[in-house]
Amino acid sequence: MQIRVINPNTTLSMTDKIGEAAQRIAAPGTRIVATSPASGPVSIESHFDEVVSAVGVAEEVLAGEREQTDAYIVACFGDPGLLAARELTRAPVIGIAEAAFHMATLISTRFSIVTTLGRTGIIAEHLLQAYGFAHHCRRVRAAEIPVLDLEDSGRAALERIIAECRRARDEDNIGAIVLGCGGMADLRGEISREVGLPVVEGVTAAVKLAESLVSLDLGTSKFGDLAFPRPKTFTGRFEHLSGIGG
Amino acid sequence: MQIRVINPNTTLSMTDKIGEAAQRIAAPGTRIVATSPASGPVSIESHFDEVVSAVGVAEEVLAGEREQTDAYIVACFGDPGLLAARELTRAPVIGIAEAAFHMATLISTRFSIVTTLGRTGIIAEHLLQAYGFAHHCRRVRAAEIPVLDLEDSGRAALERIIAECRRARDEDNIGAIVLGCGGMADLRGEISREVGLPVVEGVTAAVKLAESLVSLDLGTSKFGDLAFPRPKTFTGRFEHLSGIGG
Amino acid sequence: MQIRVINPNTTLSMTDKIGEAAQRIAAPGTRIVATSPASGPVSIESHFDEVVSAVGVAEEVLAGEREQTDAYIVACFGDPGLLAARELTRAPVIGIAEAAFHMATLISTRFSIVTTLGRTGIIAEHLLQAYGFAHHCRRVRAAEIPVLDLEDSGRAALERIIAECRRARDEDNIGAIVLGCGGMADLRGEISREVGLPVVEGVTAAVKLAESLVSLDLGTSKFGDLAFPRPKTFTGRFEHLSGIGG
Amino acid sequence: MQIRVINPNTTLSMTDKIGEAAQRIAAPGTRIVATSPASGPVSIESHFDEVVSAVGVAEEVLAGEREQTDAYIVACFGDPGLLAARELTRAPVIGIAEAAFHMATLISTRFSIVTTLGRTGIIAEHLLQAYGFAHHCRRVRAAEIPVLDLEDSGRAALERIIAECRRARDEDNIGAIVLGCGGMADLRGEISREVGLPVVEGVTAAVKLAESLVSLDLGTSKFGDLAFPRPKTFTGRFEHLSGIGG
Amino acid sequence: MQIRVINPNTTLSMTDKIGEAAQRIAAPGTRIVATSPASGPVSIESHFDEVVSAVGVAEEVLAGEREQTDAYIVACFGDPGLLAARELTRAPVIGIAEAAFHMATLISTRFSIVTTLGRTGIIAEHLLQAYGFAHHCRRVRAAEIPVLDLEDSGRAALERIIAECRRARDEDNIGAIVLGCGGMADLRGEISREVGLPVVEGVTAAVKLAESLVSLDLGTSKFGDLAFPRPKTFTGRFEHLSGIGG
Amino acid sequence: MQIRVINPNTTLSMTDKIGEAAQRIAAPGTRIVATSPASGPVSIESHFDEVVSAVGVAEEVLAGEREQTDAYIVACFGDPGLLAARELTRAPVIGIAEAAFHMATLISTRFSIVTTLGRTGIIAEHLLQAYGFAHHCRRVRAAEIPVLDLEDSGRAALERIIAECRRARDEDNIGAIVLGCGGMADLRGEISREVGLPVVEGVTAAVKLAESLVSLDLGTSKFGDLAFPRPKTFTGRFEHLSGIGG
Repeated sequence: MQIRVINPNTTLSMTDKIGEAAQRIAAPGTRIVATSPASGPVSIESHFDEVVSAVGVAEEVLAGEREQTDAYIVACFGDPGLLAARELTRAPVIGIAEAAFHMATLISTRFSIVTTLGRTGIIAEHLLQAYGFAHHCRRVRAAEIPVLDLEDSGRAALERIIAECRRARDEDNIGAIVLGCGGMADLRGEISREVGLPVVEGVTAAVKLAESLVSLDLGTSKFGDLAFPRPKTFTGRFEHLSGIGG
Repeated sequence: MQIRVINPNTTLSMTDKIGEAAQRIAAPGTRIVATSPASGPVSIESHFDEVVSAVGVAEEVLAGEREQTDAYIVACFGDPGLLAARELTRAPVIGIAEAAFHMATLISTRFSIVTTLGRTGIIAEHLLQAYGFAHHCRRVRAAEIPVLDLEDSGRAALERIIAECRRARDEDNIGAIVLGCGGMADLRGEISREVGLPVVEGVTAAVKLAESLVSLDLGTSKFGDLAFPRPKTFTGRFEHLSGIGG
Repeated sequence: MQIRVINPNTTLSMTDKIGEAAQRIAAPGTRIVATSPASGPVSIESHFDEVVSAVGVAEEVLAGEREQTDAYIVACFGDPGLLAARELTRAPVIGIAEAAFHMATLISTRFSIVTTLGRTGIIAEHLLQAYGFAHHCRRVRAAEIPVLDLEDSGRAALERIIAECRRARDEDNIGAIVLGCGGMADLRGEISREVGLPVVEGVTAAVKLAESLVSLDLGTSKFGDLAFPRPKTFTGRFEHLSGIGG
Repeated sequence: MQIRVINPNTTLSMTDKIGEAAQRIAAPGTRIVATSPASGPVSIESHFDEVVSAVGVAEEVLAGEREQTDAYIVACFGDPGLLAARELTRAPVIGIAEAAFHMATLISTRFSIVTTLGRTGIIAEHLLQAYGFAHHCRRVRAAEIPVLDLEDSGRAALERIIAECRRARDEDNIGAIVLGCGGMADLRGEISREVGLPVVEGVTAAVKLAESLVSLDLGTSKFGDLAFPRPKTFTGRFEHLSGIGG
Repeated sequence: MQIRVINPNTTLSMTDKIGEAAQRIAAPGTRIVATSPASGPVSIESHFDEVVSAVGVAEEVLAGEREQTDAYIVACFGDPGLLAARELTRAPVIGIAEAAFHMATLISTRFSIVTTLGRTGIIAEHLLQAYGFAHHCRRVRAAEIPVLDLEDSGRAALERIIAECRRARDEDNIGAIVLGCGGMADLRGEISREVGLPVVEGVTAAVKLAESLVSLDLGTSKFGDLAFPRPKTFTGRFEHLSGIGG
Repeated sequence: MQIRVINPNTTLSMTDKIGEAAQRIAAPGTRIVATSPASGPVSIESHFDEVVSAVGVAEEVLAGEREQTDAYIVACFGDPGLLAARELTRAPVIGIAEAAFHMATLISTRFSIVTTLGRTGIIAEHLLQAYGFAHHCRRVRAAEIPVLDLEDSGRAALERIIAECRRARDEDNIGAIVLGCGGMADLRGEISREVGLPVVEGVTAAVKLAESLVSLDLGTSKFGDLAFPRPKTFTGRFEHLSGIGG
């Protein structure tokens, strides 16, 4: 089974890290292909960054389709371009935010989210509402660290995340914590040990959900509103997308 | 990995059928132990049946704990005793209704449920609301067949289910159908072929979710409201439950 | 009129206390029969305790049916087995949590709940959501006292409850407090006097609702999903339930 | 105990009918005082009618306060002026719509409403949402009869209501019907017999809830947002309301 | 274009202030007619005050209809009598609370409300829920100043409002503040400058919405539940309303 | 005042039509600049089309910022890129779907949407939920015409839309219809005349809301989560976006 893990930003060290975390958790027969778009922002910390990255996500699905990919993962906590990605393939497509929310509700009754920057909290709130998990989440918290600080080798960012997770544990009346950034894919174990309650991380969760759907022979429904797009002309910089769909 | 699939009713042919469907979808290293309570109703078609079966579910978890079980599945579409079962173990516990709902939302934007009897539709409605999936479900439909008719060798029950699924496909503006009974665990393939859109079945979905959580080392949170029960005295017929918890 | 007040746990001193509180508030012509199951937990402080107690609730309804009972009350704040109990009778069945919620919304716009243990707060949250009262409740609070401490003759438990009620009054912007445990049935007067705002207690509220429904000739609807269960075989320890329904 | 049943419209034959229905269901010691405002619309079939009638409701509470009234009922299905009425007294105040909704949820899982005119359906929808009962109600139906047609001695209006109730029973997947007009207070028995499932009517339901709250010594909370209004000057036609409050 | 701005209370200095604020923001061709009812409370700080003022609102719409008014504004933050007012005219009718909520959601993702008295917070909460804006509002805050203190020439009331707005800005994780009283119509500029984030005020917002609807030739729908009331007899003090409607 | 109306697709005839409709409704002093991205799909009929078009929307806002634009309109009914657009400017940004929803709720209590293709109905459903208007909308309907058919000179598409609007009027119990496509900007008058109830169209509604916000001096809040994006590196095809933000 081949799963294409799409890091929607263009920071290759993060793509590698995410790919390694994904491969580590993957089943023996699963091959992880970690990619990121050729074009896009180096990190995603705003609605604007999301919008641009979503095109790259779609293009990475199109690239994956040329290789008979079995499943896709969108590895940014805002799940950018998720529904568009689903339209482009019969394979399942999983966002890491939704993956983490699903898993967290299976092991606890209430969870909190610890994300990077306060300004992206609204993105998590919107997803919680759209997906139906709003009443399962007690609070969206931010450690106030820029995403790329997670790429530093030092422990400063990690310590801030752990501190915020401890506050969540002590104040929020929860059973689990959801880590709110794809760049935290390698931190789950340590944070969980330090904080002492289950910590759900989206990349790893998404890999297992993707494998699950493939095993179940459940792909994105092509019946109704996730059917392939109607092919049409795209102009200018997006001309190469003309005729996509079916 | 050992997953204990608990059929909450006491019809062994159904337990076997569920166990076989579960083993068929399971990963190579997964051993399915299909059990049903020694005591309880032969089918679950009412709140009353659910209440009695929930005790059996709890006891089957306790039995599983004596065997180092890695995960549990509650294989009745009402998820009877789910939260109680979670309190009794560090392992993950998955209900087949929630499993099906989670999977259906990953491959479609809207689904309908096709269940057995109209009177159990309210159970599905309550679960959809409690889990947060109410706005993802367009309609709860019933084929109006008693659960044990699914154990007959003939095709009458199957034909009624297929007919109702076709109505869902044609009238409900959906992308997927959720089968609303554990006794349909072996019918997914045929129904999906006949109806032509993705059909999600809870037992098989739950097996993959259970395997996923075990792989992720995510068990039921013992922090907060799913902690082990406070041990106490039980009287009479339930005396053997005294001291359970921790 | 005969109302069967079912204390779902098996602590007889609590059953007596609940029965006395119920009789005290009952109308002249109402006879309260306070019972508790022969089998079950001595207190209900977890989902597991609830599940076991719900069978006892159902059996107590069946016992009541042999005596021409006019109404039933389920006297534990989680309303365990409520819908199952309703299926088993044409008489009305009232849970004390729902009773308290209904009454609290009639005299205030917002209320808080003060319950025993923090871990049971989630049960109240689930009920509030299922019943539709979530936005009427500002906060679920716990005095962190085990249920059976309420049976002690001393005032320590009472003082902790009063202290928590005062915090609710001062911090929650509410008009009323709901007491979240059947074991508080005798405390309403004193707490209300000490705290100075209306205090709603479920056992007493449920008695009046039960009398009301009987006067109105409104019993549990046997049309649709609360109809009597389909009779069937129960095995093992629950064999005596075979054939129940109609 | 004295309960003031306020018919918010000024049609005395309806006030009498409502008063008789209320007295018939009342407990032996309860005295019903049925009144209607001196000023106001002869029927309430619009938001405009409601607004005018609400002043009369408030004034009837003020009149009741001069007589030591124990409880109040607002006997129009839109519950006009309910929160204002509550501010004016320590006694409980019950609206007949809320009363019917509360009672219907105690005996069924889902109900439909059958009201008079389609245009007033929106009033019921708004109340269902505000009170939290929206998901308990399947459908709001109208028999399309003006309110005062219910005062005719003939059976035409009754037959239309019964016909609509039968459609609700057959099409809506419900367990109970709520009658959506105070003018139907005397029709409950006959409709229920004709339709064959429980029929909840608000005036009678409200009487029992009012008696219940008085027995429980639960009055409108004067703590917080239902406290007596701040006394102030009213001008012109409402000058007599100056200084009301406390 | 003529817009009738109805101050629902009878304090003429407030009517003048509101009228001036409205005229100042109005387009060149717009004539503001600021009125208040001849009869009613001098300020609106309770449900009771609201109920009485709503009649005045309706009468002011009827008065406006005799002058060919193009649009109406109900200039009290509880939007008293809004739906009734809409029934009485083909012109658009805007409440200042709804106007402020609509505008606030167009420039921010989350807002807080700062109103006068804590007891009126519940009115704002009810409106947020009814209109659908509940999840856009983080918190309803009160400066605890009586409405008429806003008419004083000193700065004490203003300072309290500014202080509460600063707390909202610093604690609530919001992008905008909604001022919760018509009497604050002239304070928006100064508060916004002092607090440093967008401040939305309802009177000014409503003027622009009213002008917008008139330009769009969109009046209150007379199709369905906001159609003119059915004409009927009103008695007593409201006899002059007989025959209103169409 | 200069309003930049961004047609997110690249069909210039539609841009012109939208621009003309916008200019026609605009106030005398308002200059409409109708633009569409240089790159993107010729029509927007899927999530995929939306994702690509959203980049163009953002770039058109950046272009507008170089010209001191006073307000922006995103003229596609899915409001693609709306929050991203807001991050890029201090000016207000209005989506035509939200504009239509806001206006429809001001003139009716319930509305239906008539859009082009059934598959885009889900986009409208998601927006209704996110914005808070879900319970104001009775039904999302589709005329099943591709967007570009609206550019044909013939009347076939118009007739289908009118037919669907008539069905909405007759079956949905509504007071207004919302047209669900920017390409219908010129059809509002004729449809309204044919159907006989208020028809709300988003482009025209958005122009008036944009003018309103500018008059009110209310721009997109730069406080909190709609602040300018953190500037960063963009790679490849999006390199020109590097350093955007503030």
